[in-house]
Amino acid sequence: MQNRQVILVRRPNGLPANEDFAIVSRAVAELGRGQVLVQVLYVSVDPYMRGRMRDQESYAPPFELHQLVGGGGVGRVTESRDPRFAEGDYVVGPLGWQEYALVGADAIEAVDPSTRPLSAALGVLGMPGLTAYFGVTEVAHVQKGDRVVVSGAAGAVGMTAVQIAKLQGAVVVGIAGTDEKVRVLEQELGIDAAINYHHSEWAEALHQACPEGIDVYFDNVGGPITDRVFEQLRVHARVAVCGSISGYNDESPRVIPDIFWRLVSRRIRVEGFLVGDFGDRRAAALQQLRSWYSAGHLAAREHTVRGFENIPDAFLGLFRGDNIGKLVVQIAD
Amino acid sequence: MQNRQVILVRRPNGLPANEDFAIVSRAVAELGRGQVLVQVLYVSVDPYMRGRMRDQESYAPPFELHQLVGGGGVGRVTESRDPRFAEGDYVVGPLGWQEYALVGADAIEAVDPSTRPLSAALGVLGMPGLTAYFGVTEVAHVQKGDRVVVSGAAGAVGMTAVQIAKLQGAVVVGIAGTDEKVRVLEQELGIDAAINYHHSEWAEALHQACPEGIDVYFDNVGGPITDRVFEQLRVHARVAVCGSISGYNDESPRVIPDIFWRLVSRRIRVEGFLVGDFGDRRAAALQQLRSWYSAGHLAAREHTVRGFENIPDAFLGLFRGDNIGKLVVQIAD
Repeated sequence: MQNRQVILVRRPNGLPANEDFAIVSRAVAELGRGQVLVQVLYVSVDPYMRGRMRDQESYAPPFELHQLVGGGGVGRVTESRDPRFAEGDYVVGPLGWQEYALVGADAIEAVDPSTRPLSAALGVLGMPGLTAYFGVTEVAHVQKGDRVVVSGAAGAVGMTAVQIAKLQGAVVVGIAGTDEKVRVLEQELGIDAAINYHHSEWAEALHQACPEGIDVYFDNVGGPITDRVFEQLRVHARVAVCGSISGYNDESPRVIPDIFWRLVSRRIRVEGFLVGDFGDRRAAALQQLRSWYSAGHLAAREHTVRGFENIPDAFLGLFRGDNIGKLVVQIAD
Repeated sequence: MQNRQVILVRRPNGLPANEDFAIVSRAVAELGRGQVLVQVLYVSVDPYMRGRMRDQESYAPPFELHQLVGGGGVGRVTESRDPRFAEGDYVVGPLGWQEYALVGADAIEAVDPSTRPLSAALGVLGMPGLTAYFGVTEVAHVQKGDRVVVSGAAGAVGMTAVQIAKLQGAVVVGIAGTDEKVRVLEQELGIDAAINYHHSEWAEALHQACPEGIDVYFDNVGGPITDRVFEQLRVHARVAVCGSISGYNDESPRVIPDIFWRLVSRRIRVEGFLVGDFGDRRAAALQQLRSWYSAGHLAAREHTVRGFENIPDAFLGLFRGDNIGKLVVQIAD
């Protein structure tokens, strides 16, 4: 059986381009014991994948040139040589940018077939949701009454972080890049205030939303937005650094205003984190997310692109700011 | 009775100069109830005082122009209208840069007259010692086996942090600015390695001292030294930011390499702190410091300048890197 895959043919220089990727067709190998064949339904595109396109060791190994681009996906089992999975089961795991994934059963997890949409397992009930959960609760220790600012607030992680911070009883302000994102955050996601950073007075608007300063900053973007937010952090503020998407396409190191003295004079704690470090609490966190989700306390807004051939461009869309909510690519019904 | 005082006559622009200060003679007021008159023996000069010379609110209020420069001191009670203190008692507290201090009894503490030197109450058994203690134990959580790097390692706080980290069982590397400081750290203070950052290969030397990377960075200096240390932080490193002396005389904000992505990929925690925030644990910490000190586990190396008129220049010496250990000015026997 033939299987289409998206491969990386060139390491992006600056902003990734469609030409960095190619679609190839390769034969699917025979299933070995403990393996499962999965038809991929939803492919996840996530900002962190940009880092793996560099030829540079980081917390995740670099993608290899002319090989499948790895990444999360949700699919349906079409064949199984493992007792834990049967044909027709829905699963989530590192399926990659391809139509069929031959994976070890240990690498995947079952998705409750009643979950709607199934792709929530890639968003609010998956890696981005867990990232938001651990960042808000375990890194930033958001408490009732905290004034919390989330950058990249309309992204997959940001949108979930906003909602979880609200569930903790915080006053939550989001920063995003379009008026439409601001509208969704304010009207659909129950945020206290949302600010479009393309408006020249956005930092003043932030000050008006948090006149006494900011207790917690959940940072998804880095760069100039973060520089301005830092000016408004209060004494004993906590900063959970989840990502720095504004710099992912930079080819040379950038500079920022020196923050060290501010850290001392305001006794600020800044902590970078990765969801993978919370493995022992993952199951409990997922249970909490599912419980909020089924009770209607957590919205799973998604931005769905359709068509296998559109995967690379959907990925590029992350850096254009196309998406409101989790960006997924549906490649089969 | 006349009392000489050092006053601030001009806010420093960049590096402070002798001309920013003047010595005046003023009459000492009558003692009120609850007040104590103290003859100042040792005056403390500390880097944080530079911040108070700016006309800018920070964690401590700015010094007023043409008024006494405040700061810690050790002295002997010459007159008391408070039952807790009697003539001849040694005390420590915010005595200021003057010969006689009229202070409220609540503001001062007794110094054990058997302590040698008495000025240790301004160093290893005082504010700098407590700062080092809380930074090492409560902020950085130094554990046995941690590879700890201390910048400004020959300063009052740095030298104590080095010793306390050793007492916790860490491998400790110090960064300082002269070969003589390196020698003292290595030969007198039991450090594992000390590095002179004026040597061009210093960052390579740091790598050789910590080939697997750095677990804890106790930062007193900020600036380019800190930038280079950050490159060598390990996964889950903790950074206790105590000060940024390299920038205290900057008149315009400086920039640093963007650290945010590194914080994420290595899951680094950076935390600024001030000793004043640990008030509830201060007494217990002081007891621990005294116990180490009397057992000979903690050296109180000092750099002593003599003469009242030399106080301003001693303060300037902090920024020239004059001192090895705590810089104190002895103004009376």
